[in-house]
Amino acid sequence: MSPVPNPALPLAVSMGDPAGVGPELAVAAWALSGADNLPPFMVVGSKRVIEKAARQRGLHARVTAVTTPQEALEAFDKALPVLDIGEGDYTPGKPDAAGATLALRSLEMATGLVRGGAAAALVTAPIAKSRLAEVGFDFPGQTEFVAEACGISATKAVMMLAGPNLRVIPITVHVALASVPGLLTSELIRSRAAIAAAALRRDFGIAAPRLAVAGLNPHAGEDGRMGHEEQTIIAPAIAALNAAGIATTGPLPADTMFHAHARQAYDLAVCMYHDQALIPLKVLDFDEGVNVTLGLPIVRTSPDHGTAFGIAGTGAARSGATVAAIRMAGQCAARRAAAAAE
Amino acid sequence: MSPVPNPALPLAVSMGDPAGVGPELAVAAWALSGADNLPPFMVVGSKRVIEKAARQRGLHARVTAVTTPQEALEAFDKALPVLDIGEGDYTPGKPDAAGATLALRSLEMATGLVRGGAAAALVTAPIAKSRLAEVGFDFPGQTEFVAEACGISATKAVMMLAGPNLRVIPITVHVALASVPGLLTSELIRSRAAIAAAALRRDFGIAAPRLAVAGLNPHAGEDGRMGHEEQTIIAPAIAALNAAGIATTGPLPADTMFHAHARQAYDLAVCMYHDQALIPLKVLDFDEGVNVTLGLPIVRTSPDHGTAFGIAGTGAARSGATVAAIRMAGQCAARRAAAAAE
Repeated sequence: MSPVPNPALPLAVSMGDPAGVGPELAVAAWALSGADNLPPFMVVGSKRVIEKAARQRGLHARVTAVTTPQEALEAFDKALPVLDIGEGDYTPGKPDAAGATLALRSLEMATGLVRGGAAAALVTAPIAKSRLAEVGFDFPGQTEFVAEACGISATKAVMMLAGPNLRVIPITVHVALASVPGLLTSELIRSRAAIAAAALRRDFGIAAPRLAVAGLNPHAGEDGRMGHEEQTIIAPAIAALNAAGIATTGPLPADTMFHAHARQAYDLAVCMYHDQALIPLKVLDFDEGVNVTLGLPIVRTSPDHGTAFGIAGTGAARSGATVAAIRMAGQCAARRAAAAAE
Repeated sequence: MSPVPNPALPLAVSMGDPAGVGPELAVAAWALSGADNLPPFMVVGSKRVIEKAARQRGLHARVTAVTTPQEALEAFDKALPVLDIGEGDYTPGKPDAAGATLALRSLEMATGLVRGGAAAALVTAPIAKSRLAEVGFDFPGQTEFVAEACGISATKAVMMLAGPNLRVIPITVHVALASVPGLLTSELIRSRAAIAAAALRRDFGIAAPRLAVAGLNPHAGEDGRMGHEEQTIIAPAIAALNAAGIATTGPLPADTMFHAHARQAYDLAVCMYHDQALIPLKVLDFDEGVNVTLGLPIVRTSPDHGTAFGIAGTGAARSGATVAAIRMAGQCAARRAAAAAE
């Protein structure tokens, strides 16, 4: 197990791909940190890359190299602290192998700092998975990497997307739609929802989380007239969750469960597939969506967007999701520490 | 072919199930018709049912029986005109066979009036399909009934959902999700999208409609890594549409095509299945969604909600979608008439 997070320590923020929007959004978040009352953080990456990103974005931000979390804490008010692990020159929008290698080292070191108790929580900036694969990264994504680094099976790590208006978990994620019905089992739904409910209690301060489970089919199958998964797979999972004391409703027709009034009835929507979860989340909270990995011994969040190579360096990338990911990581770490101290 | 709509005539509004919210929403729309500048309409149904619904909703509305469209036009400013075809007493929330029979007669007569050129357009209020089936209605829904009544194969009638913020067509509709991949063909996508594009030109005043086509899989398959339908089925349909002069983009990742900025780039989202279309529509336009049947020789709209037996008679049902359906039907009829006169 990792140690209980120490919320007095800074967060560790990985830099992401140096040719993507990660560096500029880290410095943009630092520039807003006073006004937005963000917890202190340090970027693990390249001071030179961050300074260049700040200049290109027109930010008058001081960037300072640090070697310890304590130095980062002391510097944070006046400068963005960077644990400087990389040199090299990178061009926004032009990813290359050297940049991918730097992104991977940043991720490894940031994760290690949190695992070792030297930082309060992990925030990861976007990487290009296909680029990292070329330099030896053998994971579908950062979530699976972080889970394995924590000694947890990736199947036990649950991706939640959270915005100001909605929290969702997709039970299946990056698989073809045709594969979804065959992958769903009552136990998969039950176990992922239970991990999420425990995380909402521990890290989000929701004492009795209310879960709403979507159906798979139109109108949740309409009593079996359009698909039977609601009756054979989803309803038994809901029954098991309720039997375990987790207040769970459903299966609900997915099209009517996400409007404002319906959302008041639950804290988390449990969805059967990627787009069922991500469409409403991104309609409602496009610029502020946070990807949170639940079920890990450490706190890990990420802005819910990619490297955005197409707009890196132009200043067009919005910092809302990075700011939200940093704030949420700090809050989750503080709640987890408080719960452990009780 | 039906005649070109005469926008000087009233619309024909079917009453829907007398135990549902149709009667009260028709009278609520009439009460708002002056302030909202709605086109004149007549309800085909029961004067007694409508009067009772008005009283229960606390509306001081005059209801008057008429026998011709001309009488309806003359009465509309001072009273809601009803083409009175039914007696009987019905209780909100308690559907029965007599009510279903009345709903079916109302639908048949309203459709006939529009088909025969005695009314400008058809607006249908919600029915309970399972109830109507018990009294001999042999169609999956009203859309298929209206199509057949117009001498059109139901496969040529395309359901569009339209709200103030979004228009969508689902290529597949009321089928189990597991069936969707097998039902999709390039020709199905091409033909439905082409029908929709023609209708946007003719009935919606959009001279050069821009279509955006969703992928089926997460991230639109990510170059075949999560499903191949984008490459084998959807992309060829998009190419055929563009070759026919219909500006079409895609396949787009469904989760990022519905936020405010992305929606500016298209007039219609072409979706592969029910919830992919209906989730964003109902998140954005829950109370104002209109169901429009495209490809028919008559104009037909409907509020995008059901009978709502659970709240019928309580006054809780919102009239926004009915008002929007009436307004849209009038506008479409006027545009179609203007186009025919050119």
